[in-house]
Amino acid sequence: MSERTRRIPEATVARLPVYLRSLLGLAEDDKAATISSERLAELAGVNAAKVRKDLSYLGSYGTRGVGYDVEYLLFQMSRELGLTHDWPVVIVGVGNLGQALANYGGFTDRGFPIAALVDADPAKVGEMVHGIAVRHIDDLPAIADGAGIAIGIIATPAGAAQEVADRLVAAGITSILNFAPALVTVPAETSLRKVDLAVELQILSFYQQQRAGPRAGVTVARTS
Amino acid sequence: MSERTRRIPEATVARLPVYLRSLLGLAEDDKAATISSERLAELAGVNAAKVRKDLSYLGSYGTRGVGYDVEYLLFQMSRELGLTHDWPVVIVGVGNLGQALANYGGFTDRGFPIAALVDADPAKVGEMVHGIAVRHIDDLPAIADGAGIAIGIIATPAGAAQEVADRLVAAGITSILNFAPALVTVPAETSLRKVDLAVELQILSFYQQQRAGPRAGVTVARTS
Repeated sequence: MSERTRRIPEATVARLPVYLRSLLGLAEDDKAATISSERLAELAGVNAAKVRKDLSYLGSYGTRGVGYDVEYLLFQMSRELGLTHDWPVVIVGVGNLGQALANYGGFTDRGFPIAALVDADPAKVGEMVHGIAVRHIDDLPAIADGAGIAIGIIATPAGAAQEVADRLVAAGITSILNFAPALVTVPAETSLRKVDLAVELQILSFYQQQRAGPRAGVTVARTS
Repeated sequence: MSERTRRIPEATVARLPVYLRSLLGLAEDDKAATISSERLAELAGVNAAKVRKDLSYLGSYGTRGVGYDVEYLLFQMSRELGLTHDWPVVIVGVGNLGQALANYGGFTDRGFPIAALVDADPAKVGEMVHGIAVRHIDDLPAIADGAGIAIGIIATPAGAAQEVADRLVAAGITSILNFAPALVTVPAETSLRKVDLAVELQILSFYQQQRAGPRAGVTVARTS
C-alpha cells in the first residue's frame, strides 16, 4: 500500500466516483480537452475549493487559466479507484432485489461483473438469473476462492443480513455492500458500505415538507 | 416555511436519516434514555463535534455529562424529516428494479407507501405487482393528483430517465429519486436525489485495491 494512497481521506474517496461520473458524462456531451475546477464542481454538486483539494490528493493541480486535462483526470481516477481491472461480485439473496441487481447493467459495464449468485433457499438453487445458475450459500467459501470474488453484496431481508455478513467474512471476502435494511457489523479489516434506499426518500421528504409550508409546532424544537 | 428550518445545511439534512436509523437501532438493543454525542457519532460514523453541530440545528444541545434524550431526539428528527405522516410514492418503470423497489419492505414501513406503479410498455399495464395494478405512464398526471403523490422514483433504463423526469415534473411531482444510471436535470424548484448503485462498489474497489498492495506506476500520479 503506498503512503500517498493511504493518505486520501475517506470523504475524498467517496467523491472520486462522482467526479468520475461527471467527467464521463462530459466526455460524451462536449469533448473538451480540459475542465476547470469550477465546472467540475458544478457537475459534481460540490464547491470548487473542495474539487481542487480532492484532486490535489491525486497529484493533480491543474494549470491556471486552463484547468485540468480531462483524459488524464479520467486515467488517474480510474486507477485510484481500482477500475483498471475487474472486481468480481457475488450477490447473496436472489429475491427481487438480488435479481434486479444481477440485471442492473451498470455493474458489469463499470468493472463489477456478477460472478455468482447464492441463496439459502434450496428451491432457488439451480435457477438461472441473468445467465448464472444460483448456488447454495453453503458453497460460498468454494465460490469465493474459485471465482476470485472481491466484493459481496447482501440482498437478503433484514433478518438475515448479519448472518450473511458473517458468512462472507468467513469465506475471506473483505469488501461488503449491504442493501438489507439492517445495521451489520464486520471486523475492522473488512470494508463495509451500506445502501439504505429509504435514506434518500427521507431526505426528499424533508424538502417536500419545507415546500408544503410551516408545520404546527415547529418552534417547539427550539425550547429543548 | 420556517426560517429556522430553512437554515439547516444540506449536509446536515443528509445526515439526519443516518442519526435516526442509528437511534432506532439503539432503541431496540439497549433502551437507554439518553445518548452521548460520542456514542451517536460512533454509531453514525461521523465525529462527535459534527453530531453536536448537526443537533444544534434542531435546537438540541444535550446536557453536559448526561447527553441527549433519545425519545426527544427521535421525535425531533422524525418531525424535521417530515416522517410524522406518509408521503405516497409512484415508481416509474416496472422491470426488475421497479419490482424490487415495490417489494422492498423498508419503504412502506418508514412512511413511503408505494401508491402507484407506471410503465411505458402497454403489455405491462394491468399486471399486479405487490398488490398494485400497473398503469400506463400517460396516466401520470391523473395518478399524481388522485393519489396525492409526493415523490416519484425513476426505475427505468438510463436512456428513458430524462424523459421520465420531465413527465414527473410536468405531472406536478416536485421530489424525484433517480435510480437509473444516467444524469438527469430538473427545474431548480424540484428536489432530485440520485442513487447510483455502482458508486458504492467503486468506493469498495478503492479500499480493495489498497489491501491488494502497491500497484505498478502508482507514483506517476505525482508527476502531473
